[in-house]
Amino acid sequence: MSRKILLSHGGGGEETQSLVKELFFKHFDNEILLKMEDAASLVMESCKIAFTTDSFTVTPLFFNGGNIGKLAIAGTVNDLVMMGAKPKYLTCSFMIEEGFLYDSLEQIVISMRDEMTKSGVKIVAGDTKVVPKGGVDGLFINTSGIGEIVYDGISAHNLVEGNVILVSNEVGNHGACILAKREDIELESELKTDCASLWKPVEALLQAGIKVRALRDATRGGLSAVLNEWAETSKVCIEVDEIKIPVASEVKGVCELLGFEPYEFANEGTMVLCVEAGEEEKTLAILQTFEETQKVSIIGVVSQKYPGKVVLSTPWKSKRFLEPPKGELLPRIC
Amino acid sequence: MSRKILLSHGGGGEETQSLVKELFFKHFDNEILLKMEDAASLVMESCKIAFTTDSFTVTPLFFNGGNIGKLAIAGTVNDLVMMGAKPKYLTCSFMIEEGFLYDSLEQIVISMRDEMTKSGVKIVAGDTKVVPKGGVDGLFINTSGIGEIVYDGISAHNLVEGNVILVSNEVGNHGACILAKREDIELESELKTDCASLWKPVEALLQAGIKVRALRDATRGGLSAVLNEWAETSKVCIEVDEIKIPVASEVKGVCELLGFEPYEFANEGTMVLCVEAGEEEKTLAILQTFEETQKVSIIGVVSQKYPGKVVLSTPWKSKRFLEPPKGELLPRIC
Repeated sequence: MSRKILLSHGGGGEETQSLVKELFFKHFDNEILLKMEDAASLVMESCKIAFTTDSFTVTPLFFNGGNIGKLAIAGTVNDLVMMGAKPKYLTCSFMIEEGFLYDSLEQIVISMRDEMTKSGVKIVAGDTKVVPKGGVDGLFINTSGIGEIVYDGISAHNLVEGNVILVSNEVGNHGACILAKREDIELESELKTDCASLWKPVEALLQAGIKVRALRDATRGGLSAVLNEWAETSKVCIEVDEIKIPVASEVKGVCELLGFEPYEFANEGTMVLCVEAGEEEKTLAILQTFEETQKVSIIGVVSQKYPGKVVLSTPWKSKRFLEPPKGELLPRIC
Repeated sequence: MSRKILLSHGGGGEETQSLVKELFFKHFDNEILLKMEDAASLVMESCKIAFTTDSFTVTPLFFNGGNIGKLAIAGTVNDLVMMGAKPKYLTCSFMIEEGFLYDSLEQIVISMRDEMTKSGVKIVAGDTKVVPKGGVDGLFINTSGIGEIVYDGISAHNLVEGNVILVSNEVGNHGACILAKREDIELESELKTDCASLWKPVEALLQAGIKVRALRDATRGGLSAVLNEWAETSKVCIEVDEIKIPVASEVKGVCELLGFEPYEFANEGTMVLCVEAGEEEKTLAILQTFEETQKVSIIGVVSQKYPGKVVLSTPWKSKRFLEPPKGELLPRIC
């Protein structure tokens, strides 16, 4: 019989200690974590830090190109990176349903370990709760992270006329991938989540001295949510050329089939960038050298035409407002 | 009809923004949180920090003397305090079941706000997920925290022969309170959770120069888990006088009725202290001045009699080993 997670694994006693040692310490191994105190004791190189949290409740737990574990690392890492911070330390909390398969949990933990190598971040503290059957659907993971801010002044408040907008990858892949798996849609080719840690490409931009004004990973609400939030926060108009927005043909297919817009689909390793005028080609060239951002595209400019609004120029030369997403497109996408 | 939390409140779009502004910002109000970036940007006074996380899955959500919100603040604050750290900043992540009552959520949020005033900690970043009905039982809350380490060298590895052991309050109140509520046991008097933030009393000890060797809040697994972990980690024997351990008569009653040991019951505002010999009376005097630690008691000493073991002297002068808790006493106690 397959080994399963029991309530006693979350009780704080001997069984919890053995789960923590055999599974979490084995894979997340580092000298800070191994001290096993109530909190990790850390010495930061800089006192300017970024601090963020995210809980992951995605269903299904395993999907094409990743699983909840990979997502839980990349998602929180990216939140730090989007603030110009070098990801340093994570905490990790597992909320597990009684009866969850030990092997599945280990597979998720291994994905977390592998994803951490992409940015060098370390898990230094954790928590394990096991909830009786029916209290939680399989597994939720919370990760919180701290990073050292190495580049100041990235903010949604920073956009001014003339700035240029780029998107680092095709949009909608994660949303379409989860939706296709849930709806059992057969796709001709392999549609994968874009889930990826973005520290390496962003580090390269900052080291090259690119003047980044704003940076945001386009997760829930997708590209549309980010652009609308920026337009509103900075009181500017963002004019986007629709034909420049990279969308995979499989994503277009899923969207047409089910009546969605790819710009509202969640992404998990795709960021929107706002850079100063004249920096866009250099930004493009740098990002093209990284696998996770090689499909980067310059998609628009910041103007004062309709402050607070995002305007989309369609391939047929007409224009329309790209409205902020409303309602709940896809519950449990991340 | 009562207002309810909808899936769209967790979608990342307009409805999420309005929930965040109307509920979370309203009560957690501070200038860092209000910036609404991907991560909070913080300047620490010290680069030596403590970092911890805890997810709260307690059931019932409301109980005598508190609720899941109060618990989520005090629990993470205490994990920082137990490392000699001044609690500074928290992140907070809500995982809410679709249909959860808005008013109940607000009541929980208000408890969180009130509990934060006890230590001065601030919530600076958050996350909201809404899960379709059945995906989560009501509400889970994760809080992660960072604090500035103001007193170095507190550790479970630090116990040496001659050190003195104290417990700051009656033990078992939280566990017995939750259990009584779940089992619908009618108690003659009001048994309340001990849930409390312990920064103020610990700050007073540190300011008075008390040489604290180890400090641990006795949560899951209770007093028994802490003492056994210390004995094992420091390879010492801890000799405890059972008659000195404060236990409320209602807790004794619940334990007798249901066949539990109060030393294994979870606490949420009760800590175990190990101080150097000669410091115990001063420690006692200081802690007696705080409401949350006024029932403090000196309960034992560290020796080399049975290294790795906890020995209990009973009121009948016999001795027995206090074994570490096994299995799952009470699922979802915190």
